[in-house]
Amino acid sequence: MSGHLSVVGLGPGDARWLTPEADQAFAQAHALYGYGPYLDRVPSRPGQARYPSENREEAARAAAALRHAAQGARVALVSGGDPGVFAMAAAACAEIEKGPEAWRTLDVAVVPGITAMLAVSARVGAPLGHDFCALSLSDNLKPWDLILRRLAAAADAGFVIAIYNPISRARDWQLAAAFEELRRRLGASTPVVFGRAVGRADEKVAITTLAAADPNTADMATLIIVGSSETRLIARPGRSPLVYTPRAVESVRV
Amino acid sequence: MSGHLSVVGLGPGDARWLTPEADQAFAQAHALYGYGPYLDRVPSRPGQARYPSENREEAARAAAALRHAAQGARVALVSGGDPGVFAMAAAACAEIEKGPEAWRTLDVAVVPGITAMLAVSARVGAPLGHDFCALSLSDNLKPWDLILRRLAAAADAGFVIAIYNPISRARDWQLAAAFEELRRRLGASTPVVFGRAVGRADEKVAITTLAAADPNTADMATLIIVGSSETRLIARPGRSPLVYTPRAVESVRV
Repeated sequence: MSGHLSVVGLGPGDARWLTPEADQAFAQAHALYGYGPYLDRVPSRPGQARYPSENREEAARAAAALRHAAQGARVALVSGGDPGVFAMAAAACAEIEKGPEAWRTLDVAVVPGITAMLAVSARVGAPLGHDFCALSLSDNLKPWDLILRRLAAAADAGFVIAIYNPISRARDWQLAAAFEELRRRLGASTPVVFGRAVGRADEKVAITTLAAADPNTADMATLIIVGSSETRLIARPGRSPLVYTPRAVESVRV
Repeated sequence: MSGHLSVVGLGPGDARWLTPEADQAFAQAHALYGYGPYLDRVPSRPGQARYPSENREEAARAAAALRHAAQGARVALVSGGDPGVFAMAAAACAEIEKGPEAWRTLDVAVVPGITAMLAVSARVGAPLGHDFCALSLSDNLKPWDLILRRLAAAADAGFVIAIYNPISRARDWQLAAAFEELRRRLGASTPVVFGRAVGRADEKVAITTLAAADPNTADMATLIIVGSSETRLIARPGRSPLVYTPRAVESVRV
């Protein structure tokens, strides 16, 4: 019997963002693997084994799920947001690449989800309405120098920038340095959006400018969107402004 | 009575990718506006008015939906994929910006969806597993020179590139020129994924290399992912390879 591994995206916190395909993948699984708080968002089903693990243990978690699937089980590896965006799908692929040959014969499916930048963008309007990039600010897995070069290249080329993993207890200075780099390249009034825990009860979304952007506004649950020179605000009486990046660019300004 | 406009993402073709929040927004709407084939994917409900329009009429469609909402109705503006990614949310914001002051008092909500690059990525593994950008190849709304400069900047900085709107009847040479530009900057064996109509009955996904990438493989329903120097394939016996970009980069290679 051939095993099956689904790498499943939960989307951000709101259960109304969980797709029917993801729900079905959970319902069909014999076993679920995932970061504890993500697993807690999946309803319990009788006869289904659950293996919670710590946040930073992506490789070990993926390997454990693959070992289990290789025994012929139907296993779901639970991922936050979309599994393909700074989440579990790449971790699972890396384990398959270096693991036993038998893992390459498994039936592997990735079930997409709403990734954080789409949810944050939706909350404020359409800041990702033109060309954009998504970048993880974590220098655990890549050199800091490379991150700075990518921020600079993206800003200079006129991409809106979605920043994942902006800060953590162990990485406390990088976000300030990133804003510093961006301030050298983008105007002071460039819109910046901090979207924290979007879709959860403790959601907090703040719209500010690059000049005023305070790294202390962010924590591990925050996704930041930094606009391009085209990104603008639409003031609204009694409502927070809309933030959007027009689809059209009249001339080359970068 | 204050009107309400929801800009709602359908996700790609598969109904199992439609979120419960989107489904609810459709159920609550008095009127639906959208590109005909997208509207056709929303179940009919008694008493609900439907206003289909042509593909290229985004601005007029958004304005019509806003006018209707301003009369006090609950209106859903139907978008493919995610409304915030090269879709209807930015078009709606642009109309609000230039429209009558009353439109700024409307209750406006964006309902996120699975955007095409996430669905294509899920089909092949995790090509977007590291830093990436999303770029529309359409030069209807921006100069071609700017598109080329962005492709070059993204490739040089090591971003994986998701290309939206790669080709159309009126834009028949741009994709070949884009591949040409990328071949000057990325290795011949760089993985390229063509994902056509993902989630629909006529879905077709092809994995190739930058050297072999044929623009004629693409049509208007295609999303293309061009890897970085880190993107690689995992061969699997009797299955198509997995395509993935590792989360870790050991050293600065760009």
